[in-house]
Amino acid sequence: MANRSCIIRLSRYKNALNRLKTLNFVRVFSDNLADAAGVTAAQVRKDFSLFGITGNRRGGYKVDELSDQLHRILGKDQLQEFVVVGVGNIGRALLRYRGLEKSGIRIAAGFDIDPVKYDSDGKPPVLPLENLVDFVRTRGIKLGVVAVPDYAAQQVVELMLPAGVKGVLNFAPICLKAPAGCVVNNINLETELENLIYFVNASNGDK
Amino acid sequence: MANRSCIIRLSRYKNALNRLKTLNFVRVFSDNLADAAGVTAAQVRKDFSLFGITGNRRGGYKVDELSDQLHRILGKDQLQEFVVVGVGNIGRALLRYRGLEKSGIRIAAGFDIDPVKYDSDGKPPVLPLENLVDFVRTRGIKLGVVAVPDYAAQQVVELMLPAGVKGVLNFAPICLKAPAGCVVNNINLETELENLIYFVNASNGDK
Repeated sequence: MANRSCIIRLSRYKNALNRLKTLNFVRVFSDNLADAAGVTAAQVRKDFSLFGITGNRRGGYKVDELSDQLHRILGKDQLQEFVVVGVGNIGRALLRYRGLEKSGIRIAAGFDIDPVKYDSDGKPPVLPLENLVDFVRTRGIKLGVVAVPDYAAQQVVELMLPAGVKGVLNFAPICLKAPAGCVVNNINLETELENLIYFVNASNGDK
Repeated sequence: MANRSCIIRLSRYKNALNRLKTLNFVRVFSDNLADAAGVTAAQVRKDFSLFGITGNRRGGYKVDELSDQLHRILGKDQLQEFVVVGVGNIGRALLRYRGLEKSGIRIAAGFDIDPVKYDSDGKPPVLPLENLVDFVRTRGIKLGVVAVPDYAAQQVVELMLPAGVKGVLNFAPICLKAPAGCVVNNINLETELENLIYFVNASNGDK
């Protein structure tokens, strides 16, 4: 079974392949992908073998074929929609971010409890939180982003799950627990900065 | 030597301790911290022992003492300043985010190449990119956040490093390489969503 780190590396290989395609590359070697993803060539081959992807020692991998395989594994052969709950600073930045469209991921709508933020004609629209459950159920949405204050985050997750959300990306500054049948990944700005601070200090010999 | 995952867990223990303090807890056990951070109690004790922190099997850890130790390890015994380069959607969200102040981390300034975004009186100010190197050097800043488009990201890192930045948090949708003497952590929204999509599909038995 692949773990989180492995899937993150697959995304990186896939991104590198996208760039190679625009350069008209036909073949690629594990060393090339290793350089692009910042890992060893052995790691690349190990990750691929987990999914039954095999190259040819001499000829490497065919860029098109490999790219198709990775896209399929990462669910990029179909449009993926998600909802954003909480239209504060981070939520609004996500709603405005256009970088995901070309990669087959679309924000279906934002949700908030503050009527000032409602915008039913927006692209994507911002709707009242009480519409969340119906919206997610009707559209068959499986992914949600939580960008509400810490005290409201767990509550939002509990609201999403029975509606059918199975994967949550949490930006609220609290470590959310994943209930059974759901994956929760936490992105915590403070934790990321503390991490950097630790390693910067450690490299200074302070620690 | 502690690794990234270990330091992320220390941040979580520290956050849990902060909450326990507000509840007037005097002692805490590894099981409590394990629950709060979503790990095992053995993991908590292992992480602490790496830093020479030992508890008492019966009495657990003293909340105040343990909290002080974790704050020191994470560099939170002094104010940490960082700069944000790129005041687009994500950069602006960071500049407006007030959640870091109480935790001793402060955005010193934002930088951009677009004069429309300059705001020298802002709190924090937004300054022209050409002021970055001087600003970082004068203030002795060690941390930078990159929130520019992918094609400009590596260039921004190369600009920051000689000025004295030693730790970079990268939001640009490209995996940046860390030059010698510098730590780079990448937060990639697309990669995070692809990760969720994979595990959501895997749990559906699609893979």
